[in-house]
Amino acid sequence: MNDLKKLGEFGFIGNIQKQLKARSPHVLTGIGDDCAVLSPSGKKQLIVTTDALIEGVHFDLAWTSPSALGEKAIAVNVSDISAMGGEPTAALISLGIPAKLPLKFLQQFYKGIDSACKQYNIELCGGDTVASKKDLFINIVLLGQTNASRTFYRTGAQTGDLIYVTGTLGDSALGLKLLKSRRKKWNAKESDLKFLIKKHLQPTARLKESRVLALSALKITAMIDVSDGLVQDLHHICQSSKVGAVLNLQSLPRSKAFQRVSSFNKLNANELAFHGGEDYELVFTLPPQDAKKMEKLFQKSQISLIGEILPTPDSIFIKEADGKLKPVKKLQGYQHF
Amino acid sequence: MNDLKKLGEFGFIGNIQKQLKARSPHVLTGIGDDCAVLSPSGKKQLIVTTDALIEGVHFDLAWTSPSALGEKAIAVNVSDISAMGGEPTAALISLGIPAKLPLKFLQQFYKGIDSACKQYNIELCGGDTVASKKDLFINIVLLGQTNASRTFYRTGAQTGDLIYVTGTLGDSALGLKLLKSRRKKWNAKESDLKFLIKKHLQPTARLKESRVLALSALKITAMIDVSDGLVQDLHHICQSSKVGAVLNLQSLPRSKAFQRVSSFNKLNANELAFHGGEDYELVFTLPPQDAKKMEKLFQKSQISLIGEILPTPDSIFIKEADGKLKPVKKLQGYQHF
Repeated sequence: MNDLKKLGEFGFIGNIQKQLKARSPHVLTGIGDDCAVLSPSGKKQLIVTTDALIEGVHFDLAWTSPSALGEKAIAVNVSDISAMGGEPTAALISLGIPAKLPLKFLQQFYKGIDSACKQYNIELCGGDTVASKKDLFINIVLLGQTNASRTFYRTGAQTGDLIYVTGTLGDSALGLKLLKSRRKKWNAKESDLKFLIKKHLQPTARLKESRVLALSALKITAMIDVSDGLVQDLHHICQSSKVGAVLNLQSLPRSKAFQRVSSFNKLNANELAFHGGEDYELVFTLPPQDAKKMEKLFQKSQISLIGEILPTPDSIFIKEADGKLKPVKKLQGYQHF
Repeated sequence: MNDLKKLGEFGFIGNIQKQLKARSPHVLTGIGDDCAVLSPSGKKQLIVTTDALIEGVHFDLAWTSPSALGEKAIAVNVSDISAMGGEPTAALISLGIPAKLPLKFLQQFYKGIDSACKQYNIELCGGDTVASKKDLFINIVLLGQTNASRTFYRTGAQTGDLIYVTGTLGDSALGLKLLKSRRKKWNAKESDLKFLIKKHLQPTARLKESRVLALSALKITAMIDVSDGLVQDLHHICQSSKVGAVLNLQSLPRSKAFQRVSSFNKLNANELAFHGGEDYELVFTLPPQDAKKMEKLFQKSQISLIGEILPTPDSIFIKEADGKLKPVKKLQGYQHF
């Protein structure tokens, strides 16, 4: 931390501040006072989320570039804002910085932060930078807003509602698997490996798709983002809504790269798609009468119908190729403890 | 973390959630969805602050009880909200929890959090709990609101303005000194040691005093809280306002315990009062014509006139007993790097 020591805490903050270009009209006063000040929200509801990332637990500096890490730190929070039907406005970042980290790393990290902020229309309006003893610690807080009547919760799914998901499932978990055993000789094209690893290291939050749903008049009854795995996150909807669900095994959207790499290497593709975390896709439910209208708003590759809400509280079933329903025993994916 | 492992991440969150009783009318949806949802702020400005606390850097588990740590984590953020003239509404907490930490510690910690939330009218509305490899990491985000015309920045101090501070200075730094060398035989009464250590471990944010100022019509030109030391924080006001300041050495408010312990043990009392951090008192400026009106709103022990704003940009002077001005060379207090 020689460079950092030379700069000092306030020199460092000044240095980084110059780098940050992304602005939001919602931020009246950003970095540089005791608090950030945001404009009154008028009739909009304020929403807020936070995500902590710890080195060695959530990321490995041997795998990720600092700018990709900055991008991802923002994207995972935008995913939570998207899952409520909101638009992000302003972010705060707390960093615990270990002595080993060069200033250059931090500048690249903030480059990634700024790039993601531009992409999603966010201004970094504050934070806290402190010394950490060993590991890099990142905490992001993201503020956003919704129209009250278009805030999507986990609580409203009803029996008979259809279950949709954006994008494809399992790519990120497979990408992580590839990163964890990079020395293994995988039977795969280089471009497939790259695609899957990128899905893990630089996920895109589904803000655009969420905006389309929020700005429509469709009756979205529940929504969540897939951060802990499809089954676990759908289970959260089921618990909150006091319903159950059936997932159609054959409808689970899988990318070409995922299909090739998992089948050529005899991996358990279902396990990855059902329980793999960090896809940051959106899962949402709506009544069947709204399905056609909704589908017209998207391209076919953007969303997939994957199942239906059942009246059986708290239980999730898989509908297999033969049409039989099989209960899912493992309702929880990744847990921290 | 056996207890925690047994509970699992979601079990733990459920367990803690039951413990939390403090509520705010501003929180529409708290813990349990992708984001917390807060009511529209109408014409109020939204303010937000964040503070990170890392074990071994900001606190030592050998010194602090878990509930005092929880109280302080909230109080230091309330101090930032107070420094803007705001009232706090909702908090989010991110915890990086090392395996060694027993569940009981966390329950006591949240007891402190809940108690401080009650004291300051805050609802804990969300957060993130993750595993940490070695040290306990705490990040608090606190939201609040102000009336736009009564938001107090660092930028408005003008030549001739008087400088006031709440409470007393140096107690916390002296308390920390006592904690760091507990085995030393101090020449002091036990009750004085206790008082000073408590000022360090369980500081009170000056929310009441801030509310009195915000709800008055007084022309407060700048305000900041003393977290890094009086000189450094006043220097922030000077930099932002492009002015200088003179501090009257003989007017610096010092508690009786501080006076006794520092003189009986031949400590550098001025150094502690000028540069010691974490007093969480408020420093504010206002034009002399408003001084009498302001002073009537407080008891004498609550605020002290300590100096005056000068036209000399970026420089701070001390007025000594003989009336001479001496420039302060060390304008910065605690720095993290």
